[in-house]
Order: sequence, then C-alpha cells, then structure tokens
Amino acid sequence: MSDRIFRVNMTDLSTRIEDVPEGWAGLGGRGLTSAVVAAEVDPTCHPLGPLNKLVFAPGLLSGTVAANSGRLSCGAKSPLTGTIKESNAGGTAAQMLARLGCKALIIEGKPSGDKWYSLHLTPEGVRIQEETELVGQGNFRVVEAVRERFGERHGVITIGPCGEMRMLAANISVKDPDGKLRSHGRGGLGAVMGSKKIKFITIDPADSKIPIADPEKFKGASRTFAKALLDHPITEGLGEYGTDILINIINEAGALPTRNFTSGQFDGHDKISGETMHDLIKKRGGKVKHFCHKGCIIQCSQVYNDKEGKYLTSGFEYESIWAMGADCCVDDLDVIAEADHVMDDIGIDTIETSVAMGVAMEAGILEFGDGKEALRILREEVSQGTPLGRIIGCGAASVGRAFGVTRVPVVKNQAIPAYDPRAVKGIGITYATSTMGADHTSGYTIATNILNSGGHVDPLSKEGQVELSRNLQIATAAVDSTGMCIFTAFAILDDEKCLPALVDMINARFGTQLTIDDFMNLGSSILKTEREFNMKAGFTPAHDRLPDFFSREPVPPHNVVWDFSGDEIDAFWDF
Amino acid sequence: MSDRIFRVNMTDLSTRIEDVPEGWAGLGGRGLTSAVVAAEVDPTCHPLGPLNKLVFAPGLLSGTVAANSGRLSCGAKSPLTGTIKESNAGGTAAQMLARLGCKALIIEGKPSGDKWYSLHLTPEGVRIQEETELVGQGNFRVVEAVRERFGERHGVITIGPCGEMRMLAANISVKDPDGKLRSHGRGGLGAVMGSKKIKFITIDPADSKIPIADPEKFKGASRTFAKALLDHPITEGLGEYGTDILINIINEAGALPTRNFTSGQFDGHDKISGETMHDLIKKRGGKVKHFCHKGCIIQCSQVYNDKEGKYLTSGFEYESIWAMGADCCVDDLDVIAEADHVMDDIGIDTIETSVAMGVAMEAGILEFGDGKEALRILREEVSQGTPLGRIIGCGAASVGRAFGVTRVPVVKNQAIPAYDPRAVKGIGITYATSTMGADHTSGYTIATNILNSGGHVDPLSKEGQVELSRNLQIATAAVDSTGMCIFTAFAILDDEKCLPALVDMINARFGTQLTIDDFMNLGSSILKTEREFNMKAGFTPAHDRLPDFFSREPVPPHNVVWDFSGDEIDAFWDF
Repeated sequence: MSDRIFRVNMTDLSTRIEDVPEGWAGLGGRGLTSAVVAAEVDPTCHPLGPLNKLVFAPGLLSGTVAANSGRLSCGAKSPLTGTIKESNAGGTAAQMLARLGCKALIIEGKPSGDKWYSLHLTPEGVRIQEETELVGQGNFRVVEAVRERFGERHGVITIGPCGEMRMLAANISVKDPDGKLRSHGRGGLGAVMGSKKIKFITIDPADSKIPIADPEKFKGASRTFAKALLDHPITEGLGEYGTDILINIINEAGALPTRNFTSGQFDGHDKISGETMHDLIKKRGGKVKHFCHKGCIIQCSQVYNDKEGKYLTSGFEYESIWAMGADCCVDDLDVIAEADHVMDDIGIDTIETSVAMGVAMEAGILEFGDGKEALRILREEVSQGTPLGRIIGCGAASVGRAFGVTRVPVVKNQAIPAYDPRAVKGIGITYATSTMGADHTSGYTIATNILNSGGHVDPLSKEGQVELSRNLQIATAAVDSTGMCIFTAFAILDDEKCLPALVDMINARFGTQLTIDDFMNLGSSILKTEREFNMKAGFTPAHDRLPDFFSREPVPPHNVVWDFSGDEIDAFWDF
Repeated sequence: MSDRIFRVNMTDLSTRIEDVPEGWAGLGGRGLTSAVVAAEVDPTCHPLGPLNKLVFAPGLLSGTVAANSGRLSCGAKSPLTGTIKESNAGGTAAQMLARLGCKALIIEGKPSGDKWYSLHLTPEGVRIQEETELVGQGNFRVVEAVRERFGERHGVITIGPCGEMRMLAANISVKDPDGKLRSHGRGGLGAVMGSKKIKFITIDPADSKIPIADPEKFKGASRTFAKALLDHPITEGLGEYGTDILINIINEAGALPTRNFTSGQFDGHDKISGETMHDLIKKRGGKVKHFCHKGCIIQCSQVYNDKEGKYLTSGFEYESIWAMGADCCVDDLDVIAEADHVMDDIGIDTIETSVAMGVAMEAGILEFGDGKEALRILREEVSQGTPLGRIIGCGAASVGRAFGVTRVPVVKNQAIPAYDPRAVKGIGITYATSTMGADHTSGYTIATNILNSGGHVDPLSKEGQVELSRNLQIATAAVDSTGMCIFTAFAILDDEKCLPALVDMINARFGTQLTIDDFMNLGSSILKTEREFNMKAGFTPAHDRLPDFFSREPVPPHNVVWDFSGDEIDAFWDF
C-alpha cells in the first residue's frame, strides 16, 4: 500500500484521501509536519481559528522494525508561542498510522457549532463521528472507553479537559502499549485539537506490513543501529534509572533551576533523584524499565507505584520531576508523581504547567514547596477551568502577565525547561534560537556540555556553544523526521557506525540513495522552513533572546549570568 | 527659569536635576517622551522590570495662555503592547510642570523591596517619600488626601489599585481643575508606575511664569488660534453634547462595534447617545460643559449626576460609553456612568477593560447586556485582583487567551476602540500601523471619513485611506508634542489660519523660526523614532495587521469585511 495523505475538514465535516505530492515524498515526522504547516497555514492567522491546521505524521522509519522508531510528530501554528511547532511523542499511534499507509493526517477548518467529534482512521480513510459521552472526561477514561468500544488494539490520540478548554499549555496524549499515556507535550497543540472540536482519534490496527525496498540491507543496518544503541553507556543508564538520573548530575553541575530560577542547586535533590526513584520502584513492585512504543530498546520509562503498590504514573521524566520538584521546591516524589498523573489525565504539559506554578509561587498565590496546594490547584482549578486554573493552564508567561511577575523564564512565551542557561550556556543558545520557543529537545547540548557525549564543550564558557547548538539542532531536525527517539542521539554522536546505519535504513526502506550529507541537509532545510514561517508570522532576531533577568541575576553556585550579545546569538543562523 | 530634566532613580532612591541635552531642546510632549524612551530604554527589556523608564513631559506650549494646550504626555515601553507608548491626558499637571521648568520627569530603576513611595516635585527638584496610608486606595481618595496634606492647589498624578497590582490595562490619573480625574488611559502605563512602586506624584503650584520670547507675537497668534477653534462647528458640538455626540453618528454610519464586534449598529443607541446624556445632565443639575484643564475653550467634558442629582462622573467620553455600552450591549447610561466612575477610581483604562468585558461576555463569563454583573466584576474582582479580575484587568487579549476566544479585537495586544475598521477603513489603517497598537487618537480618520473635516474620503472604499491615515498620524504626532488637545485637529484641518497660528505660537514662545514644513517634519520624525524602537523590540510588518476575523466576518449593516492586503498596509510607511 503506497503512502497517502488523510485530510479532514472540520468546517464541513468532509474527509478525503490524497496522493502524496512529490515534494513531500521524502519527508516524514517533523520534516513533513513543518512542510505542511509552512505550505498551508497563514503564518499570521489566529492559532485557534479555522485557518490553522493540525498535522500528524509518523517518521520515515515508523512502523518498521528499526529500533526506537515509533515517535509520532504533531505540528501546527502554536497557540502558546505563535511560532510553527512540532512536538513528538511515543505511544502506538505512529506505527499504526504508518501501517495504515497514512503519511500524514491533516486536520483543517473548524466547526461552527458546539458539537464535539471523534475521528476514526481505517485503511479506507477517516470517519467523523459526533461524540457526547466522553466530552469533559480525562485522557485515561478516553483510552478505556475506546478499548470498551473498539477492543484492546486500537490506537488512541486524545485531549483532556484542558485541550477542550483551549488552554495554551494543553497537550495531546497518545495511548502507549500498556494503555497508559505518552504526550505531545509542548506548545499547546491540545488547544488546537480542542479548537477543532475533536476529542479523540482512533486508529484501526491494520495488519498490513510496511513495504521495504531492500529487506536484506534493512536488516543489516537495523542490527548495526540497534547494537550502537545497546552498547552506549548513557542509554544503558537511562534504562536503569530513567531520565530522572539527571537530577543529581544537573544539580552537581549547578544548573538545576530551583525556586523559580533563583538557584542552580536544590537542597532536596536526593529525595527526587533517579536513584531514589529506582529504589522506590523496586520496593513498591513497579517496573524500572518500560517502553513507550514497541521496538524501543532503551526503555527509559518506568511504572511508578504509590505506597500501596498501586499504579501512579509512568513516563515519569526528569523535566517533569524537575519542574514540579526543584523549580517549585517540592521534595516529595510521591506528590510529584501524583501531579504528573493528574496533568496526564487532564491533558496539560507538565513542564509548562509546573513552571507556571513556580511563577505563581513567586507571585504569592501559593508557597514554594507546597506540593499539596499545587495538587489542589491542578485538580480543582486547572481541570475545572476556574479563572486561576486558566491563568496557570495558559503557562508561565500567562501567570507572569496576570500577576505582574518579571522573573518569568520563557522564550517566545514558552517555559524554559530543566537546565539553567546561565550555567549551561549551550542550551541557552538552543532556547534562544529554537524555532519553537524554549525547548531542550530541539538541540540538546546537555549531551556535550555535561554528559561528554560528542566530545566536551565547557558549559560555563561562551566558546563553541553557538556551533554546538547549531550542529545539534540541524541533526535533531533530521532525526525528528525519522520517527527516532531523541535518545538515539548519544549513539549517533559517539558511535561512528550509528548514523550511517540510520541513513542506510532509510535508503533500504525507500530504495533511495541518500548520503549522510543529504540527511544533514534535510535537517538544515527543515530549520530554514520553520524559521521562514516564523519570520512571516512576525518573529525577528529580537525574539531570539532570553528574558533580561538572566543577564542581571547571577545564579548560584557558579554565580554566572547569561552574557551572549545579540550578534553572537544571531550568528547561529549563519548556515 | 530655563527648562530642566528632573530625573528619579527608584533603585537607589536618588534624584537629580539635569540640563536639557541640545537634541531634546526643541521637543515637548510626545516628541520628547518618545525621544527619551528611544534613547534610554532597551527595546527588548521587560516593561515592568528595572530597565524600563516612565517619562512625563508637558507640551511645548503647556503652561502658556495658548488655548487647549494643557495636555501632559506620558511615555514608556508599554507592558500591554510591548511597543513604545505615549498616552496624553488633561488635568492640571502639564501646566504646573511647565511652570516648574520641568521639561521632563524621567523615572528609572525599581526598588528591590516591598515599600511604596510618593514623589514630590518643587522648583528645587524631586523629593522621594515612603508612602503607607494611601497604598491600596482609589484615585479619588489619593486626590483628597493630597488636598488634606498639601492644600487645594497641588497637582496630582496617581495610580489606583490596578496600577499597584501591575495590571496591563492600568492607567495613570491626573487631577483636573475640579479635583476630579483625567487619565493617561491606554497601554498600561499605570502598571509601569506600579512596578516602580510609586503610588502618586505631587506637583508644587509654583507661581513662576513661562518665559515668552516674543510676547506680542504670541498674543496675536494665540488669538487667531483660539478664534479658529471657537468658530469650528464640530468643536461647538463637542462642547454642547460632549464626545458622546458620536454615538448616533457612528451608529448611523454602521460602524458602531456592537456585541463584541459582530454588528455595526446597536439597538440601544438612543439610550446612550450624547443627546440623551445632554438632556439627563440638564434635568439632574449637572454641567453640560466642563474643561479638563484651564484654558480649554472647547469644554467637551461634563459633570454627569445620578438620579439623586449627586456627582457620578465627568470626562465621560464616547469611547468609554461605546465600550461598556454598545460593545457589551448595555443600554443603561447610569450603569455605564457608574462603571466609568469605578474604573477611574481603581485606575484602569475604560476602553481596554470594557472591550475585555465584551470578550468575557462572548466567552460566557457573563451575559451580553448584564451591566450589573459587569459592575460587580469591576468592584469585586478587578479592584480586588482576584484571578478573574486580573484576567480582565490585563485586557481583551488576555481574556481571549485565557478562555480560548478567537474573536478578539486587538492590534499589538491593545483593544480596538469605538469605530469598526471594516466600515470605516481609514481608521483600520490607523489601528494597523500606529506605533502604539490599536489607537484611534493616533490618526483620527473619523474626522475625514465621517465628519467631513479636511474634506471627505469614503469610509467604505479602500481608496485614499492609507494616505489619509498617514497625513493624520504625522500631523497628530506633531500636535501631540505641543500640549494641544486632539480636538484642535478639526480647526487645523479646516481653517487655514489655524496651523500657522499654532506654529507662530511655538516660535514666539521659544524665539525660533520654524516653518509649517518643519512642524510636519517633526511629526514624521517622531513616528520614525517610535517605529525604530518597535523594530528593535521585535515588531515587523506582520504585526501591522488586524485580527483575521475582520477579513472573514462581514459586519452588518454594510456587510463589509476588512480587505486590505499586507502590501497595501505596508505602503503606509513610504515616507
């Protein structure tokens, strides 16, 4: 079955299947979502109006047996940042879409009435149904209801009440192999789905196989690639301790943003560390290793149980734990896990919302460290859409505006995640220049600044950071197009066989003759497409800046400030 | 006494008096505030942080006997729009500052603690005092307290609780000759004053006279100028019926934005019209004519009493009445007057806040037409800084973001005022291109589109609108530098003796030899300075656009849409 575009128009509730235009044939994942948004969305439109489009695309290798290739890209003009946005997530949907031959699902228009809908994808195309029962329900209930209605194997893409209410930090969740959730977390894409009145999307578990042009070559490359992943010491650590292994590492580096970015170290770091989590999981009968999609051989996820041994959360990431933990001074991992579960269920980005909570603490809405009150606010205010809930549910900048706070860690209106840019300067360049607002995943310099993967660039010196961020952002844009998880990056950086194997797999899948240079050029061209969209939307180099408090307030323990000039930052785009 | 700059640093609580730099000598009012902000404020700074500056400057003719020359300019980087901002107001302060020889008051820095302060201007300079008693009090109480402490004649510049809470629609109020209030309404400058922890400013009523280089020439020009104002039919109508005379006129033109900009006519227009107000005032023993500053010979203000004949409000403007009236579908003038009084007292822009209320009505927070609930929200939520109050107090765009509304009439985050741009296309060009976000005063094309002042340009046709808006914006920037009220524009447009007399007065005051061309060049250069600041702050032509709903939704009764292309709008800047 050849790949096709599934297109849904929510204004007139029509659907159609289209051939893939030639220019998009070599694209997948982020490369494709960004190409569609750049080609079809007016950059100055209201992100929640009928002119925006929501695009899902599996990666180029999704649905194959390639290790770690099950990421799904979702793109649109972001209502949070106003920029183009791609956010990718694990779960079962990417592989299922690929098996349906759905190269991209493009959702456009907007219904004029108040009715809610669900979309149902099968090999024949898309069916639109009115939905009443699940409106207002949490994501876990939606996944359960789809199982009841359609059986165990259907894929699910869903929004919670926050997406329905079009909160700017609302996320989109994807069912994982255990019926739990993975999320397109950042940029408020859940609000775009909510604006189109789509509560959830199901995907038929078609049994068709992905066509492979050269199966033997694919098998060989796939083995080499998997071995490179398995052999890498960092990916090994990620499996054992999860991404939360970073708490102690980043705290030691003095770059763990604490108390709304006023310190780089958190007294309570031991209580929320990966090591502590690992021991708690073992003690309570959870799972240390867990995958977000089939074929993942890193397994950085986990199943975290409560004191009674009952499931509490999974996919419990360092950035989420940092945000509700160190940034809000909450040192109780169970409270953080409960908050994580609530945010997953109501469908809101854990990073944005927790950083917003930290700004609310600075504003005096609640005390730093008061995790119980944070939980109450999530359950009784955010999930209910009270005015306070909406202020927080619209993110850190929203809280800053409403309460007149000036220490608001955002770039292009999106919260800065778990690494202080004053103490790890490479990641500051990524935050400043990313086409998507502050986003660590778009050029994860922590790898080289802190973890010594791909060499070492001193995190406290300005030297080499722009180049480091540029190389990583280009590579990441390309990798984000394959369906590969970001944690393949460590092996790509350190094992010389890994990247050739990745490109070989693409060539074997499609019968193409791409070189490594072609692959990196794909990354460059994605970044340029995204930036051009942003320029048309009104962004300029003046937006590629960190908030001024980073330049004025030294962060302990290194007592360093952000000291890049505008010109130095702007050199990022010299390629 | 020669003019000087009064400078206050709120970080170290120091003050000093400086000579006027040569480049600023020929500037006053908006020309000066914009020059200071452009020269001294980092365009990318946080508007509520220590790097922003708040600048007050009387006009070039303020303090002289020139008719209508008592406007005070206030400038800063706006926390609402992120652009440079000048907002001017009547009241007694401009004339008193001019008599003190204070060409500009520049307030910079920000205290680190929680203490509040007041500033006291005398011929010797500025004294900073800690303030406790009036913190949290309304503007009327502040004016009364200053009278009690210092006597009847002191000038007062003050913020209410909304400015203290740094709400983005907070205004700055100025005591008028009757001890009532006039406001620097737009752009949230009250939040900037609040961020610097200044509750109020007093001005010593120095008896010194303004030096006039050529008194005889000044006298003659001043008489000619005053006669031109008095002879003009529109200024006459403004005196009799106030600016609210426009309700019926704009309704008739189909351009009275109604029910959050979904219609151009309001069924209840008669109940809130200037004619109705005039009759009510007469019946209740108010004043039909009233001036905002001494020397005003138009007297468009009034004293509006309640049913019991007790003072309710004054300076009760068309735009305020429209916003809480037609836009929110409230057809009770007493309720609107009460809301006007409350907003004056708590210190928040009537246009921004009422348009925000209209968006809240669209979001379902309250019903269209429910003026009582709007009043309750102002009194119990906005003035108290509850979460809902803060959402509304941060303006129309804030409400749109929080509640996911897409019909949000703003440009550069500032609410579009009382003239629908689809039905009066010239004013749409002004909204789109103004350096300050949507602002009717920056290029009041209504004069020519509707009132046939300065000729006539068909409001429904695109032809000639860009040129009209450009000419008016240039002239307005120059007039805003003189201290002259915007309503001198009608005589300037229609009486050929008026503009030469204005320029003659400036020359007679300073002993200069400015030509009319010089005067208009001043206007051009102000606009360019302001635009350059905005470009450095990150604004581009993509921000010179109206929200996309104006292009998609025809407005009755003409059923017209906004149909300017980006290129057509951008031609505005070809000068």
